[in-house]
Amino acid sequence: MPPVSLDARTVIEQMEAVRERQPLIQCLTNHVTTGFVANVLLAVGAAPAMVDSAGESEIFAREAADGVLVNLGTPHPAQCDGIRAIDYGADTMPPWVLDPVAVGSLPVRTALAQELLSHSPTVIRGNASEIVALAGSGQGGRGVDSTLGTDEAATAARDLAARTHGAVAVSGPVDLIADASSTVRIANGDPMFTEITGGGCALGAVTAAFVAVSPSPLVGAASAAAVYAIAGEKAAGDAAGPGTFAVHLLDALRSLSAADIMSRADIS
Amino acid sequence: MPPVSLDARTVIEQMEAVRERQPLIQCLTNHVTTGFVANVLLAVGAAPAMVDSAGESEIFAREAADGVLVNLGTPHPAQCDGIRAIDYGADTMPPWVLDPVAVGSLPVRTALAQELLSHSPTVIRGNASEIVALAGSGQGGRGVDSTLGTDEAATAARDLAARTHGAVAVSGPVDLIADASSTVRIANGDPMFTEITGGGCALGAVTAAFVAVSPSPLVGAASAAAVYAIAGEKAAGDAAGPGTFAVHLLDALRSLSAADIMSRADIS
Amino acid sequence: MPPVSLDARTVIEQMEAVRERQPLIQCLTNHVTTGFVANVLLAVGAAPAMVDSAGESEIFAREAADGVLVNLGTPHPAQCDGIRAIDYGADTMPPWVLDPVAVGSLPVRTALAQELLSHSPTVIRGNASEIVALAGSGQGGRGVDSTLGTDEAATAARDLAARTHGAVAVSGPVDLIADASSTVRIANGDPMFTEITGGGCALGAVTAAFVAVSPSPLVGAASAAAVYAIAGEKAAGDAAGPGTFAVHLLDALRSLSAADIMSRADIS
Repeated sequence: MPPVSLDARTVIEQMEAVRERQPLIQCLTNHVTTGFVANVLLAVGAAPAMVDSAGESEIFAREAADGVLVNLGTPHPAQCDGIRAIDYGADTMPPWVLDPVAVGSLPVRTALAQELLSHSPTVIRGNASEIVALAGSGQGGRGVDSTLGTDEAATAARDLAARTHGAVAVSGPVDLIADASSTVRIANGDPMFTEITGGGCALGAVTAAFVAVSPSPLVGAASAAAVYAIAGEKAAGDAAGPGTFAVHLLDALRSLSAADIMSRADIS
Repeated sequence: MPPVSLDARTVIEQMEAVRERQPLIQCLTNHVTTGFVANVLLAVGAAPAMVDSAGESEIFAREAADGVLVNLGTPHPAQCDGIRAIDYGADTMPPWVLDPVAVGSLPVRTALAQELLSHSPTVIRGNASEIVALAGSGQGGRGVDSTLGTDEAATAARDLAARTHGAVAVSGPVDLIADASSTVRIANGDPMFTEITGGGCALGAVTAAFVAVSPSPLVGAASAAAVYAIAGEKAAGDAAGPGTFAVHLLDALRSLSAADIMSRADIS
Repeated sequence: MPPVSLDARTVIEQMEAVRERQPLIQCLTNHVTTGFVANVLLAVGAAPAMVDSAGESEIFAREAADGVLVNLGTPHPAQCDGIRAIDYGADTMPPWVLDPVAVGSLPVRTALAQELLSHSPTVIRGNASEIVALAGSGQGGRGVDSTLGTDEAATAARDLAARTHGAVAVSGPVDLIADASSTVRIANGDPMFTEITGGGCALGAVTAAFVAVSPSPLVGAASAAAVYAIAGEKAAGDAAGPGTFAVHLLDALRSLSAADIMSRADIS
């Protein structure tokens, strides 16, 4: 892959492509934030479908989904069955995102994450502790929170991307998105994202929506991160706390304009 | 059944009956929108109880529930067991609503929906694609979204109602509610309902609350659809996007007045 | 235990201790209100972790959690396995809260609640019907709602506390929190709490966060109840209904000040 440089114009094109093509995103995701994740997908213009049981997940991925999210936040046996039923190597498999929530010391999700890693996810999205743990060089964070800074995961991200031939997105105060040949940093966002549950989960879903329509995993993942973070900045501006922030985030994702992205995007 | 014509006055009476009698509604429903569905039931004055495991669902339906909702959005094995444990033909079975989410090509829910159809649900509520697929004449929609207009499901709705001796409600820009002898159309609502998750699921639950207190399935289902759609119109009026819409919908359902219904109801 | 008297100053100290120490609270809780419970924990300054599957729950309780919530609202087989996998008697077990939702006539949760009771929860939190049913002297409420007043559960609460050597919190218009030697009443709160789903579940989680940092179960449970109820009063003040109330509750919990507690606390 030749190195990619991302600018605000490209981010806007990806946002508009999601709104126009309304990709159908199948989510096999944790039961804590399922409703919020579905609402965020709708707000960016995608169509969510939470089809995650073993008898239906493979058919839906093969015949209907434009993108798939696999989030390991609550790996109950029935959902693990649904995740394993998908044929990730099939020609019909759409782009997919692995979100290895709290991977590291917890055995069920850690083993499943390694198994999924061998199927080369289009994008892996996590916080710094999760990315380092998945790459095999750390023990994970504190619950779902990272104990490392984004840049401490840069090498792990590039290593993972080289193994999957996809992109790896490290979320944090500055987001870092890497593939084997390029690294993009996005310095947008707001600390309020850490005060609501599902902030990361929803970004994983948005990433699946963007890679479903984008020319490359890196462009899709980085554009998703930029749109999501900029909407968060707008939402935080008129939020009185985490309750109103989550509500306004949905409104901001729905109404985000090209001008918002041009004026706020901080990409390097 | 003699043909029924519904007017705003009847809708108001049903709304007031729900608020006064506070029916206890047992929900066996998908895990995406469970909390939203419970909050909508509370907002209309009903009492939600999400009792859906196999060891408890039959007892609760028999001894406690005034109405039951069965929604097939996420048919995990444990919940399917809970759904199948209920004795739908028992004398003690209260009115119940089947919401056949995304029925059609997905095998687990499609088989279960057909099985439940043989137990004659009091009301079936779905979008046009779901109703047509359940009646055996279509393949279902795109994920949870309909690819047909409401009127394209009118014949399927009447056919299903004739088989179940109940009512069938087709949700869409204009809602169509039919039983074997009557058809009611409700032209209230707002496109914002399609921009949040659970808009249809919650209407299924509201329908269960209304048929628990109404003189007939048709009157209950049509009154539920009218109240819900009119509250949505009010909520959309001061919403800045899907986040605030969902929040205001709960407030509007709670505070909806007889005057709101008299002035807005568009029933034919 | 010597009798404890609680004042507003102590409540403030506990609130500040939670914010400073950010206890990591493992929740094995019902699937209706999981996201709301996680958001409430974040709003009080704690860190939620919904680790509830059998292969992970014991490890997390032993190695990571500062407090544990066990809520029996939707006792599916897989979650029951996760709940039973924890070694409640281990030296490494942190303080934990049992929330016996709708215990009484429903057999799965009632049997599991009795089993957990034998492991001496640090705090038991429920409504009056649940506490009386758990103590063996009643049949439970109507669904998740109490059919008894708080004071009708006072004897049952003290009996349970004597058996567990912990505290028992009875939620209602006036909260009653008892251990074997003391009883505290908190007359704060707002009727709006009964119009949203998860109002009780979230208080169970907040209680786990407070007992994780407090000098005694009684002080932790009573301080949690006071902070939560006072935040509810503030939220209700500018709510237009249950939708805005739930949103403002999160904002109010996040921004609650010592002055708010000093001016509003009604503790006896």
